[in-house]
This record gives sequence, structure tokens and C-alpha cells, in this order.
Amino acid sequence: MSAPETILIETRAGVRHVTLNRPETRNAMSLAMVDELLGALKSAESDGVRAIVLKGAGGHFCSGGDVKDMGAAYAGPGPDGEDPAAKVNAQFGHLCKAYAETGLPVIVVLEGAVMGGGFGLACVADVALARETALFRLPETGLGLVPAQIAPFLVERLGYSEARRLAVTGGKIDALGALRLRLVHGVHEGEDAMNTALEAVLADIRKGAPNAIAETKRLMRRARLHDAGSLIDDAARVFAAAVRSEEGAEGLSAFIEKRPAKWVQG
Amino acid sequence: MSAPETILIETRAGVRHVTLNRPETRNAMSLAMVDELLGALKSAESDGVRAIVLKGAGGHFCSGGDVKDMGAAYAGPGPDGEDPAAKVNAQFGHLCKAYAETGLPVIVVLEGAVMGGGFGLACVADVALARETALFRLPETGLGLVPAQIAPFLVERLGYSEARRLAVTGGKIDALGALRLRLVHGVHEGEDAMNTALEAVLADIRKGAPNAIAETKRLMRRARLHDAGSLIDDAARVFAAAVRSEEGAEGLSAFIEKRPAKWVQG
Amino acid sequence: MSAPETILIETRAGVRHVTLNRPETRNAMSLAMVDELLGALKSAESDGVRAIVLKGAGGHFCSGGDVKDMGAAYAGPGPDGEDPAAKVNAQFGHLCKAYAETGLPVIVVLEGAVMGGGFGLACVADVALARETALFRLPETGLGLVPAQIAPFLVERLGYSEARRLAVTGGKIDALGALRLRLVHGVHEGEDAMNTALEAVLADIRKGAPNAIAETKRLMRRARLHDAGSLIDDAARVFAAAVRSEEGAEGLSAFIEKRPAKWVQG
Repeated sequence: MSAPETILIETRAGVRHVTLNRPETRNAMSLAMVDELLGALKSAESDGVRAIVLKGAGGHFCSGGDVKDMGAAYAGPGPDGEDPAAKVNAQFGHLCKAYAETGLPVIVVLEGAVMGGGFGLACVADVALARETALFRLPETGLGLVPAQIAPFLVERLGYSEARRLAVTGGKIDALGALRLRLVHGVHEGEDAMNTALEAVLADIRKGAPNAIAETKRLMRRARLHDAGSLIDDAARVFAAAVRSEEGAEGLSAFIEKRPAKWVQG
Repeated sequence: MSAPETILIETRAGVRHVTLNRPETRNAMSLAMVDELLGALKSAESDGVRAIVLKGAGGHFCSGGDVKDMGAAYAGPGPDGEDPAAKVNAQFGHLCKAYAETGLPVIVVLEGAVMGGGFGLACVADVALARETALFRLPETGLGLVPAQIAPFLVERLGYSEARRLAVTGGKIDALGALRLRLVHGVHEGEDAMNTALEAVLADIRKGAPNAIAETKRLMRRARLHDAGSLIDDAARVFAAAVRSEEGAEGLSAFIEKRPAKWVQG
Repeated sequence: MSAPETILIETRAGVRHVTLNRPETRNAMSLAMVDELLGALKSAESDGVRAIVLKGAGGHFCSGGDVKDMGAAYAGPGPDGEDPAAKVNAQFGHLCKAYAETGLPVIVVLEGAVMGGGFGLACVADVALARETALFRLPETGLGLVPAQIAPFLVERLGYSEARRLAVTGGKIDALGALRLRLVHGVHEGEDAMNTALEAVLADIRKGAPNAIAETKRLMRRARLHDAGSLIDDAARVFAAAVRSEEGAEGLSAFIEKRPAKWVQG
């Protein structure tokens, strides 16, 4: 893969930090950015990092779809009879799905504009930390458009009822309002406070065994749409596999020897 | 359709205002009221208003099912072998379903008694505004009855766990308690504050394109029970259709010309 | 059934009080405790008590699975080819399922350690009351294990998004944090305040007719995974059956005669 042009990628202490980097557009989501964010997740998964952190350059997280870039794509030819607008839009859906379903912990650091597709990305993360400057909005319906790929992820994050209320009223909320809805899990004033909060979240994540976290995320995803009772046997198999795994053995040894497990330091 | 007897209907600035109007019973839900509320929604949908607002006359929203009226219906003959109590009850369920599934924005203004079926109606609205006087309760189980049609809509609004807690304990909550549970989205003291809040909600709704709002509501309803990933293609079709629609064209033009879109003023 | 060894059972004023009673292990969940808690629920159901209250002895609720006891079971032979770790784990899942699905109101009184399996039990209750001392944690992933049976019940209680966040970050929260997430429904300082709160919840529960409460819980459980519209006919049958039931007749009589219904005093 060639070097990404729309995002910055850094690895520090076993954590992949990805920065949306089109500050001149408040990090609007271009077609290239969708592909590069997908690529960044795949690399993070195969490189065995402990978490992936998404943020934006220049004081904003993401202002949503890049109207110019996307608009040009919509106008393009559709030789296969498929509407190019649908194709481009679906690709963004696959991006959200990939981040929503990864076994890796995903953290977003939100500030400034968190709009449209950026709002959607904020909803797929496991942990969302907001700066006091964060401003959320769903501008789509005001443009005659539909926050279509985002809608399901708002429901996952906020529950059906609150998601519907935001969709109907345009979704304008500030950081503290987002905290009240548990759209974000903390609001932090200034860069130092944010960095401290992020490090604390990462320290908590490092204490957990990577595969164990991934399996727990997978079970919870199933539990959203299935009765708990119907998952007992699957859960028992997952549990027993963990007991017999290297992680399980290391966890037990570390517990008995009163030392941190290997995965704590990465 | 003849003029309704149990509700008042007014249209102001493109918004349908429906008032439950049986103040001598704190707007208890009679059979006629169920039918007239269903009719009011159908008219609102076909008349192309921008939203429907439900409230109650005389300082109360709705005290629940009218025991006398419903009781008389239960006793009636059931020539088709169907229990008339089930029939009457199902009709109320269809009312809740219709308001829950409409593409139109639905707002409820809650004050005084919000009980039983009234509690249910409060749960189906997209936006619920409460006066400080609002008092919620589920009196059914105290009468040996089941809040049967309401139960699923409490789950939709509050989530399964909180709905269950209320069902088990009788559901008595005041306005601020309802706000904490996000059963309502704002509490407003006095009529002026309520009117201001309602106008603000309506102004936000007017900014959105009507079909775009309806499609978003529909997608979110599906997302409550389906995995986000499974909705990508459907969402992409909805998005592309919006791009090619009159609304999409008008939205883009208005954006470029820096003017409000046509739908903002109705 | 022989007398239980790991729990204490008392009946007071028609309510079954069950105390996890292994204070030397902070009431860690042993194989015997799983079986005895299942037995206690079955007895409570067949004895017609009005509610079941779970708490822990010695200032803690439950510190999770008993590592020694469970570990010994894992090592045991599996003549049927089944992994004994899976079998033991599934049995705990059946315990959670039974408490989650019972028609009886379930209340938990939480203090001190509420960890792992104890966290799961806290999530299955209809009403969770916490002392100010309660400390929640999901230690499993830190040991290389998976909170497998618990995961779905965290999703039921907290919603998918918040459950996932806790799973990824280890789930450490104190009583007030738990209240903010509605993991618990009240925080009470000191034993007297807790007893008063518990009595108030039980008084609310006694006002409801037992079968009506059970049917409402059942409908809500279905509504978590089904569209409200699809439940209308089932709900109508449940409602009509309640109208025709002894409870319905007694509820109506009591209402007309302005007296408490029989079930209020047990």
C-alpha cells in the first residue's frame, strides 16, 4: 500500500494513532480517506496493536462527507447500472461496519466539528472522549439528504428513541449534551486533560488480554440482537476456549505470581 | 369523516396541533378517541403538514383508558368468537403503532396526568416535552390488568431494563425523573416556557427535508432490530434516491445559493 | 432438597430474602452456590412469594466466580467429550437466565464487591439498589478470561454501547457511576437508608397483581427483540385474559369499593 495522503498514522506504546488530516476542510471525508481509514484498521489488526485511536487535525474531528469530492463521484458513469452515489455511500458504510465490528478497542478523540459521517464514526468507537469544543450535528436532512449509513450506528450508540429524536431535530448538541446522552463518555477541557484521560483509558485497556477483549466484544454484538438465554452455549464455548488458551494460562500464572500479565506492557 | 368529538384539531404554520379534549375525565382514552386520533394522523400525513403535536386539554395529557367506556365494550357480544376486550385493546395498539411508525415528526406536550395509555403515547413520540406538573404512572397492574399494548413502546423509549423496572414498580415518576430516564427530552415551567421550547423544536424540524426525515426514521426503526452491517445496501439505495430527488436538488441549490431551502418555510 | 450451605433463605412479609453467605470469600460464586441460587428461585416461584431479594453477607455482594472451586472443576474429567469448563460456565448462564426470565420481581441489594458473576447478577434484577460502598468490576479479561455469560446481561441492562465500553475498559465503577449508567436505580448511604429504600420498592411491588406483573415482564422481554407492531395481537390476548381473570375481577371490585386489592397485603 502506498503512503496515505489523507490521514497520519503513528504507533506509540503499542497503540495505533490515526489522525484525519485534511484540516483545510475540517477533515471532511473524501473517497480516499474512506479507503485509507479502512486500510489503517486492517493494518492495525494484523500488526497486533492494542488499540486504535482516531482523532482529527487542526481542532476538528470531521465535518462529514466532502461534498465536492463525493459530488464529483456521483456524477461519474455507472457502467454496471449501479448508481455511483449508492456505491460511494455503501463504501462509507463498510468503513463504519469495520470499525464497529473489529475486535480491537477503538477510541475517538472528538473536538470541534463532529458532523454527519464524523458523527457516525464517533458512534462506532468503544470509547469516545470529547474536548469541550466538540459540536455535533447531523446536517444531512437540511440538505435534502439522509444520514443513511450513520443512522444504524446512532441507534447502536444512543438507543433507538434518542437516535430518532436527534434525526428528526438535526442532532445539534455540544460536548456536555453529548455526555448526558452517553454519546461520549467524558468531556475534558484542554489538551493536557484530554491526554491524561486518553492515557487512563489506554492503561485500562492494556490490563485486558487482547483476545479476551475481542471475544467479549463479539459476544456483546450478538447479544444486541439475540436473547441472552440463546447465547449460553456459545458463551460457554468461548469461556472454555479462553481457559485453555495461552492468555488464560498466562493470566492464571500472573495472578498466582502476583505480577502483571505479559499483555499489560504490550 | 364527521367532525371529531373527543379531540380538537388545528393547523398553524404547517403544523397539525391535536388536543385530547375530554377534560372532565382528564382526557381518558375512549373508543371514539382512539379512532379519532388514528384519523387525525392519517389526515396529517395526507395533508403534508410538517409535524403533528399532541397535547391534552385542561392541564392533563391523558389519564389512560376510559374504564367506563372500555368496560362497556368488553361486556358487549362477540359474535365472531373474538373477545371484545382483546379487540378494543388491539385497536389501541394499532393507534400506538401508527404514531410510532409514521414518517411525520411527532411531538407530545405532557402535563398533569400521563397514565397508562397516555404514558404509551408519550413513548411513541419523537420528541416529548413535559411541563413541571407532569406525573407519570402505570396503574394497570394495580387493577389486576396488564399495560399490554404500552409495554413494547416503553421498551422502545426507555430500553428493556428501565421499562421492566417501571412495570414492576408501577411507573410513578415526576417530570424531572422522566427527564433523567429520557422518557421526556425537556422540562419546562409554565406555559410560556413550554411554548418557546415547542417552537424551537418545530424550527429545528422545519430545517429538515420532509422525505429525508421520514426515510431516516424508517432506517432507524429497522436498525433497532437489525445489525447495522446488514443495512448498508438498503441505506445506500435510500441515500442515492435522496441525491436524485427533488429535495436533494433543492438542498444543493439552496446550499450553493446560501438561502434557506423551500421546505424551511413550509 | 437438603438445606443450602452457601446461601441463607428467609421469608418476611411474603418476600423471599436470599443472602449469598460465603463472607470469607466475599461471597464468591461456587458450583454449590449456583445450584442453590437456582433452587431458591424455583422454591420462591412455587411458594407464591411476591418478590425475591438477593444480597450478600459481610459487606460484599459477590466477588465473582470462586477461582479455586471452579478451577478444580475445570480440571476434572470430561467423559462425554464436553469441556468441564464449558459445562460449569453454562450452568452459571442458566442461573442468570432463570433470574432474568422469572415472572417474580427480583431486587438486588449491592454493597462492596460486585464483580464478574456478581456484576452479572446485578444486571438481571428488575431493581438494583446500591449502598455507597458498592464497587463494580469485570476482572475476567485481566485474567485472560471472558465475561462470557455476563456479557449478554450487561447488554440487556446497559444497552449495547455502554456494555461494550465497560467490557473494553474493565468495568470499574463506583456506586454513583453505576447510578449514572442506570446499572443501579438508587444509591443509599448506610443500612437504615437502604432498608427504607428496599421497603419502598417492595411496597410498590405489592400494589401490583402478581400475574399481571409477570405477564408484563414477559411482554417486555419479547419487545426487546421484536417490533412493537408485531406484538399487538399477543398483547391484546394477554390483556383480555387479565380482564377475565380473578385478578382482574378483584382489581375492579377493589377499585369500585375504594379498598386495597387482596394482593396488596399478600
